[in-house]
Amino acid sequence: MTARMLVNGVAAEQVSAMDRGLAYGDGLFESIRLVGTVAPLWSRHMHRLAASCERLRMPAPDTTQLWREAQEVTRDMPHSVVRITLTRGIGERGYALPVAPRPTRVVVAFAPPQTPRQIYAQGARMRVCDIRLAEQPLLAGMKHLNRLEQVLARAEWSDPVIAEGVLCDSHDRVISATMANLFAVVDGELLTPALDRCGVAGVARAEVLATYPQIQVDELTLDALLGASEVFLSSSVRGILPVRSLGERDYPVGEITRQLQQHWRNLGFTMEQGG
Amino acid sequence: MTARMLVNGVAAEQVSAMDRGLAYGDGLFESIRLVGTVAPLWSRHMHRLAASCERLRMPAPDTTQLWREAQEVTRDMPHSVVRITLTRGIGERGYALPVAPRPTRVVVAFAPPQTPRQIYAQGARMRVCDIRLAEQPLLAGMKHLNRLEQVLARAEWSDPVIAEGVLCDSHDRVISATMANLFAVVDGELLTPALDRCGVAGVARAEVLATYPQIQVDELTLDALLGASEVFLSSSVRGILPVRSLGERDYPVGEITRQLQQHWRNLGFTMEQGG
Repeated sequence: MTARMLVNGVAAEQVSAMDRGLAYGDGLFESIRLVGTVAPLWSRHMHRLAASCERLRMPAPDTTQLWREAQEVTRDMPHSVVRITLTRGIGERGYALPVAPRPTRVVVAFAPPQTPRQIYAQGARMRVCDIRLAEQPLLAGMKHLNRLEQVLARAEWSDPVIAEGVLCDSHDRVISATMANLFAVVDGELLTPALDRCGVAGVARAEVLATYPQIQVDELTLDALLGASEVFLSSSVRGILPVRSLGERDYPVGEITRQLQQHWRNLGFTMEQGG
Repeated sequence: MTARMLVNGVAAEQVSAMDRGLAYGDGLFESIRLVGTVAPLWSRHMHRLAASCERLRMPAPDTTQLWREAQEVTRDMPHSVVRITLTRGIGERGYALPVAPRPTRVVVAFAPPQTPRQIYAQGARMRVCDIRLAEQPLLAGMKHLNRLEQVLARAEWSDPVIAEGVLCDSHDRVISATMANLFAVVDGELLTPALDRCGVAGVARAEVLATYPQIQVDELTLDALLGASEVFLSSSVRGILPVRSLGERDYPVGEITRQLQQHWRNLGFTMEQGG
């Protein structure tokens, strides 16, 4: 039998109740899409994880070990999502960093979320979330375990027709969707929000940026987004999703969106079947 | 043998690795000081916990059950701190709220932190932290599990002579210390920062507010704090701590601080022995 979850390399389903990941959200995670044994964005995930460990002053991850464990938990799964959680480990009461931290490592396999084919073809309907993301440059960009803002944002709606929500900061600058990064073509220019004050810098976003070096990484106001000619989302788990509407505003599925969906297939993803 | 930790009422030391407390910091905690079987601020802790559960759309806690469990884990301990952690429970991958959440409840007993008598007598030395707290009104005031800002703040210094750090927001408004709330006498007026945009509204702070109804709850700039004639901290675990210095600025231990320390003894706390 294949273990679908490994905790510090051992088949297990629990972690210490004293773990700082639980106590303070003191850690990081990555959600990684695999097709069979291939994870096309693996190196980008590992790059972000290592960079974030450095920012949080956590020991660097052993990426070879993580790869071995990701392969073990997904064995015989044609399509999977691996969540890797890395925390600062067990600690005593109190915020001070442990003198000799021993990180906790959870590697678990899931079936990919069921995203209807229609969303890849015709696009996702979105709304603007009421919550405004707080600005914290020291945490911005990282996929850390402090995600209450996303939980509250996602709790704002239950209508299954709405696939995603736009998150803005307190100055009505668009930052991202709740589970994905966002791109827009505004006045003929491809643009994605800067993420130096809030938001998560997704690995799919990094792949899009590498594919289109001319993208502007800049402020994107809500007004500018409503005036965009093309809008799409990037997600390491779901790939490239066209956006068909934001509230009352409709968007066509654009050329760049289609090109990137093709790029994703070229990378080895098969979203329409697996996701 | 007495269990020092209960997970959902059962002697255990682990929680599910799928718990949303670990995945997203999706939950709350309380750190409660007991002297023998007495927890003088218990009802304030339970009030905050219930109010925060409502804000996070979590089921209300069973406070009778929590009291029973707090008594069980601290049995035969003359002095203790009980940490109660309440999460939204086990969830699938994704931020959306579970349809029928079954919260996870961790109740664990610790020995109180060793605070030197000298600090109660002569005061704590403090520094101003570099990190600026992000402003998120929807999370402000709660003792939730998203505490990376406090972890980063506490990691800024290792000098054991410095007992605490002042946390400001991005407008250089003083909010609190890293583990305590802060009060200052400025131009003869007792003042504590408003916590509607960031910070944790401590139960010891609530006790101080109830004791001195004339306190101003308002903005406190860093400049005003440096010009204060008396500064002290409140903590549910450590009680009332005078502040003797902030960087180069020295403060005398003031009258209100001494009165509140006496009030804390009257409540049944015995900080100098136990803490």
